[in-house]
Amino acid sequence: MKLVTFSAGAGTLVGAAEPEAGLVRDVSALLPPDTGLLAVIERWAEFGPVLAGQAAGQPAVPLDSVRLHAPIPVPRRDIYCVGKNYREHAAEFGRSGYDSPSRSEELPDKPIIFSKATTAVTGPYDDIDPHHGVTNELDYEGELAVIIGRGGRGISRESAYEHVWGYTMLNDVTARDLQRDHKQWLLGKSLDTHCPMGPYAVTADEVPDIAGLELETTVNGENRQLALVKDLIFDIPDLIATLSAGMTLLPGDIIATGTPAGVGIGFTPPKFLVSGDVVEVAVTGLGVLRNRVA
Amino acid sequence: MKLVTFSAGAGTLVGAAEPEAGLVRDVSALLPPDTGLLAVIERWAEFGPVLAGQAAGQPAVPLDSVRLHAPIPVPRRDIYCVGKNYREHAAEFGRSGYDSPSRSEELPDKPIIFSKATTAVTGPYDDIDPHHGVTNELDYEGELAVIIGRGGRGISRESAYEHVWGYTMLNDVTARDLQRDHKQWLLGKSLDTHCPMGPYAVTADEVPDIAGLELETTVNGENRQLALVKDLIFDIPDLIATLSAGMTLLPGDIIATGTPAGVGIGFTPPKFLVSGDVVEVAVTGLGVLRNRVA
Repeated sequence: MKLVTFSAGAGTLVGAAEPEAGLVRDVSALLPPDTGLLAVIERWAEFGPVLAGQAAGQPAVPLDSVRLHAPIPVPRRDIYCVGKNYREHAAEFGRSGYDSPSRSEELPDKPIIFSKATTAVTGPYDDIDPHHGVTNELDYEGELAVIIGRGGRGISRESAYEHVWGYTMLNDVTARDLQRDHKQWLLGKSLDTHCPMGPYAVTADEVPDIAGLELETTVNGENRQLALVKDLIFDIPDLIATLSAGMTLLPGDIIATGTPAGVGIGFTPPKFLVSGDVVEVAVTGLGVLRNRVA
Repeated sequence: MKLVTFSAGAGTLVGAAEPEAGLVRDVSALLPPDTGLLAVIERWAEFGPVLAGQAAGQPAVPLDSVRLHAPIPVPRRDIYCVGKNYREHAAEFGRSGYDSPSRSEELPDKPIIFSKATTAVTGPYDDIDPHHGVTNELDYEGELAVIIGRGGRGISRESAYEHVWGYTMLNDVTARDLQRDHKQWLLGKSLDTHCPMGPYAVTADEVPDIAGLELETTVNGENRQLALVKDLIFDIPDLIATLSAGMTLLPGDIIATGTPAGVGIGFTPPKFLVSGDVVEVAVTGLGVLRNRVA
């Protein structure tokens, strides 16, 4: 299933999208009142079978007539992200001068984990605020994100996929100057609207071969990033095992797996985003995340 | 007021502590059902005057007969923290070899912001899990924390205190090996129970001279950290202005202001925490945060 959070007039609803048919089915009638997608994921053992069995019979509206929000518009905590997790990107980031000098072009030997604030989350087609006056170096990072289903601590590599509810995409929009100047990355990663997410939260059963997926990012139609998920330095089981070793993962936690080579600072001179630019992130089968810089 | 989250038998309640009298007053009857302290802070304009006027008349139980939880046991998002925000600590961290080599003993010219995961939060007298097998280098960091009342973005230095609801303390327990090896600090800062908090959430009106407060950390009664809040490199208005420049602060957000010199890695050889150690953090007027390493 491709689940969405959407609004069409009053209220915010959970829907099941059928992109090929251009429809979204309002599944609210199958859920208790005011149950958002985060709660649906948390209680998936209960709601999953109901949605799988009955979503197709629910009332449909044209997908292009509704406003899609981020699948989880208000995460229960910050989004966990992985830095330098594709080989070529680790190298370009090292060369760019934005990383700490001592690290240069080395590959990380352990995952680099940081977070984006919840308030950065915005919808899959919403504008990115350039935050003039706060940053002058706006950059994009297309990423595959994992949504945790069953939480836990000490999750092994072997059982990691049992804890994956599904997948979405996000653009880990980055204020490079803040990322560099504040040393730790949180602030440069967390400006409002700098985490466009969606359009769909896709259940894991629809993605049998995660390693085979292709990730592409374009800016104004020009290809900038193109990679296979199998090129991740630390794969999804690595990330789940590392994060959960001493930190309990919760249902609905979002883990952005890292961005491949081709970000703005990978070019000489850097290709920073400017107002009017349109960034598209696409992962095989997950739709297209499309955001304009306001 | 010194507000607490406590349990005494069934359920978790909001209370008003009177440490001098050794009492905690159960103020639940003044609040809608299931209103936690986070919701009280969020709706302070409504609940603040009620509590101020009527808390003293509510039923009291001995403070030592209840279990105190962290004032906000489940924050709405990760706790924002500031690295190297006392001069002498910045120097000791540089010398310790745990920081990135290129940074050495330099003072930060902008606040270093990172976060601790919500799941790290534990009560003011709860045990710290040493996470044997995950870390071998457990360290303490006593800190004053600010609790945001009114949220906002683009908050000026001048109006920053209008957004402060009050104060608490936390121990920014750190797995130094993870902090170093994963480069970004989140993971080394976020193991379960590594954010003891409390005992009280103290309203700002009780702390007229924040800069004059003294922070002390002891381990097994031995003084390790002693500093005045006025020695912060970036003071509370700086931190609020910096964080909120492009990132909306929310009611209930917790900002840990940084730790002074005297952490375990500041000694040669390092004085890491071991099972049985008792760490106490005390800030003038805010009580004592006391946690044993399990």
